[in-house]
Amino acid sequence: MSPADPDFERRVRDSFERQSFMKTIGATLERVDPGAVDIRLPVHSGLTQQHGFVHAGAVASIADSACGYAAFSLMPPDSGVLAVEFKINLMSPAAGDCLIARGRVIRAGRTLTVCQADVVAVRDGNEKTVAMLTATVMTVTGRADVQG
Amino acid sequence: MSPADPDFERRVRDSFERQSFMKTIGATLERVDPGAVDIRLPVHSGLTQQHGFVHAGAVASIADSACGYAAFSLMPPDSGVLAVEFKINLMSPAAGDCLIARGRVIRAGRTLTVCQADVVAVRDGNEKTVAMLTATVMTVTGRADVQG
Amino acid sequence: MSPADPDFERRVRDSFERQSFMKTIGATLERVDPGAVDIRLPVHSGLTQQHGFVHAGAVASIADSACGYAAFSLMPPDSGVLAVEFKINLMSPAAGDCLIARGRVIRAGRTLTVCQADVVAVRDGNEKTVAMLTATVMTVTGRADVQG
Amino acid sequence: MSPADPDFERRVRDSFERQSFMKTIGATLERVDPGAVDIRLPVHSGLTQQHGFVHAGAVASIADSACGYAAFSLMPPDSGVLAVEFKINLMSPAAGDCLIARGRVIRAGRTLTVCQADVVAVRDGNEKTVAMLTATVMTVTGRADVQG
Repeated sequence: MSPADPDFERRVRDSFERQSFMKTIGATLERVDPGAVDIRLPVHSGLTQQHGFVHAGAVASIADSACGYAAFSLMPPDSGVLAVEFKINLMSPAAGDCLIARGRVIRAGRTLTVCQADVVAVRDGNEKTVAMLTATVMTVTGRADVQG
Repeated sequence: MSPADPDFERRVRDSFERQSFMKTIGATLERVDPGAVDIRLPVHSGLTQQHGFVHAGAVASIADSACGYAAFSLMPPDSGVLAVEFKINLMSPAAGDCLIARGRVIRAGRTLTVCQADVVAVRDGNEKTVAMLTATVMTVTGRADVQG
Repeated sequence: MSPADPDFERRVRDSFERQSFMKTIGATLERVDPGAVDIRLPVHSGLTQQHGFVHAGAVASIADSACGYAAFSLMPPDSGVLAVEFKINLMSPAAGDCLIARGRVIRAGRTLTVCQADVVAVRDGNEKTVAMLTATVMTVTGRADVQG
Repeated sequence: MSPADPDFERRVRDSFERQSFMKTIGATLERVDPGAVDIRLPVHSGLTQQHGFVHAGAVASIADSACGYAAFSLMPPDSGVLAVEFKINLMSPAAGDCLIARGRVIRAGRTLTVCQADVVAVRDGNEKTVAMLTATVMTVTGRADVQG
C-alpha cells in the first residue's frame, strides 16, 4: 500500500489526538503504517457491560477508529475521513489486560475504502481474537468542516 | 410483544445500572417497554471524533445497548443477554444537544433475537436521524457468569 | 420522497428488464413508487437450499434489487446505481407460495443512499417476515458503462 | 481446524448436491477442507444485472454457501447448518471468466460459527478480489427438517 502523502503518519497522529472520545475511554494509538493502524485499549472498570466484560460499543469504537485511520493513512493531504457503515461480530467475551484493534485496508477506492479490523484481548502476553469488524469509510475533499 | 417476566422493567434497569461504560459516556436509560428501550446521550466534548461530531463508536454504543435491552425485556428470568453482531449505517454527522437511541425487537427467537435501533440527534427540540443499527443478540441461560 | 426525474418509473422498469439474473430466478417487478419498490419471487424447486427452503442468496438477491431500485427511483436521469454493501438477517426459513421484497429508501444522499428491505413469505394469503436487509447504494454519474 | 466427523467431505458434497439453487445459477463445489470450502461460478449472461456485471445477489449466493459449508465441514454428524446473517462489501464490478468464493471459518462455536469469504473474479488466469462477505451460521441439532 502506498500513501498519497509522505507525511501520513503525522497526519494520522494529529487527527487521533483530536478524537477526544479515544481519551475518554483511555485508548492510545500504536502502529501507524500505510494502510495499517493499531489502537490499544487498557481494560478498566469504566469500560464494562453488566457481566464485567468490555462493552461491545467500546470494542467497536477502537476497531472503527483503527479502520478509519488505516484508510486515512493512504489519503491525500487536505482530505477528511468519514465512517459510512461498519459491522462487527463479537466472537468471545472481551476481557483481559488490554485490547488491541488492528485495522487494515482491504481495498482503497477513490471515494470509498473497505477496511477490516481484528480485535484481540491480551492476557499475560497471550492473545485471543474477540471481534472482527468490517467498515466502509469515505474520503471527503473540499469540506472545511471535515479535515483529518 | 409480551414479556416472559412481568418484572422485566426492574431487571432491565438493574442491568443497565451495572453497565459502567454507559456511565463513563454519560448515557441514561429512558423508556423501558416490552421489546422497546430508549437510551439518551447528552452530547459533550468528551464524545467527539476529530471533526467535532460524536464518534461513531459512541453512537453505536448506545444503539447496541438499546437493542440488547429491548431484547432482554422479553427474556425469561435468570437469562442473560449477549451481543452476537451488529451493523450500523452512519447517515449524518452526529451533533446536537443529545442523541437518543430507540431500540426495538424485530423478531424474538428462542436463542437469537433480531433488533433494530434508530439514533436521532436532537437540537432545539428537533430530531434528525443520524444512524440505524441492526443487531443479533443471544439469550443465554444457565451460565452463572452471564446473568442480566 | 421526491424523484429527481418525473420519468422515474419507466427508467426503473427498463433497468429491471436488463437484469437477466432476475429472469433466471423468476422474479418480477411490482410496485414502483418514489423511494419504494417491491419485487416478487414465486417459490419453485430451482431456488432451494439443502433443506428445501429458499436459498438465502435468492432471498438476498430480490431484497438487494428492491433496495437498489428504490434508491434509483430518486436519482437524476443519466445516473447509474451500484451496490456498495448490504447486510441481511435471516429470521425464519423462507418457504411458501412466493416471497415479496419491499425496498425503501431510509436516507438519500448525494453520493450514498441507505435503504432497507423486508422480505415476507406469502402462504395462502398470509404474510410472514423472513428477512430484513439494509443496503448502501451509490449514485454514479458520468460513466458510460454504469447507466441505469 | 479439526472436523468433528471424519466423513465431513462426503457430507458437504451430498448437501451441496441438494442445493438446487446452486445448479440453477451454475455453481460447482471445488475444494472441501476442514473449515475451508471453495465454490466456482462460471460467468454467463443469465447472471447479470443491468450493466452486464454479475448481480450482487449471485456473488453473495456463492459466498454464503461457501461460508455455510466451511462451517458445516466442522460440525458433528446429524447436525444441520442455517444462515443467521451475512454482510457483503462489493469492492469491484464482478466480471470475467468465472468467480470463485473462498469461504473459511474464523471462529467455530458450539451454537454459532463466524465465517468469511473472499470472492475473486478470474480473467485469463488473473484474479481480482470483487467482494468480501462475513457470515454467522448456526449449528442446528435434533431437528428432522434441518439435516445437512
